Amino acid sequence: MNHTTYSLLENYMLTCMGDSAHDKEHIYRVLYTALEIAGTEQDVNYDILIAACLLHDIGRKEQFENPNLCHAIVGADKAYHFLIKHKFDSAFAKQVKHCISTHRYRKTNEPISIEAKILFDADKIDVSGLIGIARSLIYQGIVGTPLYSVLPDGTVSDGEKDTIPSFFHEYHFKLKKIYSNFYTARGRKIAAERQKSAEEFYHRLYKEVNLPYQNGRAELEKIIGRELN
Amino acid sequence: MNHTTYSLLENYMLTCMGDSAHDKEHIYRVLYTALEIAGTEQDVNYDILIAACLLHDIGRKEQFENPNLCHAIVGADKAYHFLIKHKFDSAFAKQVKHCISTHRYRKTNEPISIEAKILFDADKIDVSGLIGIARSLIYQGIVGTPLYSVLPDGTVSDGEKDTIPSFFHEYHFKLKKIYSNFYTARGRKIAAERQKSAEEFYHRLYKEVNLPYQNGRAELEKIIGRELN
Repeated sequence: MNHTTYSLLENYMLTCMGDSAHDKEHIYRVLYTALEIAGTEQDVNYDILIAACLLHDIGRKEQFENPNLCHAIVGADKAYHFLIKHKFDSAFAKQVKHCISTHRYRKTNEPISIEAKILFDADKIDVSGLIGIARSLIYQGIVGTPLYSVLPDGTVSDGEKDTIPSFFHEYHFKLKKIYSNFYTARGRKIAAERQKSAEEFYHRLYKEVNLPYQNGRAELEKIIGRELN
Repeated sequence: MNHTTYSLLENYMLTCMGDSAHDKEHIYRVLYTALEIAGTEQDVNYDILIAACLLHDIGRKEQFENPNLCHAIVGADKAYHFLIKHKFDSAFAKQVKHCISTHRYRKTNEPISIEAKILFDADKIDVSGLIGIARSLIYQGIVGTPLYSVLPDGTVSDGEKDTIPSFFHEYHFKLKKIYSNFYTARGRKIAAERQKSAEEFYHRLYKEVNLPYQNGRAELEKIIGRELN
């Protein structure tokens, strides 16, 4: 891919990006990580891979505005039409579309091409470790969900059986599960190296927030002479 | 303090709370932690302490809407007027006002009473460790600032010399500095126990986000045959 083509795709990506959890630096991290994985795989078409990485989240804004839409499907269509409009080869545009449409974890629409598998893994690596933790917390701020839920007995819920959205819920239902879903050996290895940091963060944070509820609530109930709701 | 008075103050607090970084659970953590610290101090007036803890952030919304306002000063005034309106003793209302007005770290307006010192410490403990990290990231999401800045040479800034707001900037200019500013021995001890977790988080996250920029950017420049901006 030459510099002019790269700039064309990069600029289109920049016009589509929105919130800071999926900001342009996420795109660059995914692209750079994908190139690292690609160096360990055979027969990778770098033009398809770079285009797919740059454009993989251009449907985010549409999903954010209408949660019934899937950003992978919307983004794949937008990318395809953009590439055709700019005279890219139809087979190339289809390959990029395949990568983008399959980058989100869904059992029914899996990545087939090596470029799609690399994008999938590079995107999941950005949900692993502490970067996954940090991006998730930033996202909780954007959408206004809390860090944790408090159970009816006044203790902090660890999130494992929660039905209400929170960061602890997100940890159990998404963040801690991603480490087994990789297509490339290099992708799996990078994520595995970060897994312990993410687990430690969750367990230490839970301990920090739970402690005052355990000690202080009982003390307060003694002072006001009544059980708290 | 009896249950009726507690409920009156708690309900007023609940009507004033806004964003999820300073949500009601922050208030309860501060209150519970303050009670823990109070158990290690002499001559604490628990009525003043509980009222001050419950009402300490009721000026947040005003500061969020107008950053020239200080939430500690606004909140202290609001609390004073609420207490007077509800027939609390004027000396009591003044003591609560003192606690709230001095709970924010400022060199010129320091906490004098033991209740003000305990509130100050309990509030700072909620900025220490991983709870401080998590709340700061949630706040970055709310106000739309990024995780880090990228320097003109394409490397990730560690935040230490940054002038542009980001989480890494916030870590160096606020989060890492709070551990020396405590008035009570118990407060200092709780924060110190959490300090290592926060430092580890920052250093590990920096390593995670910096790695792809170090490796992938050079690889991309080779492919497109030109240095990136």
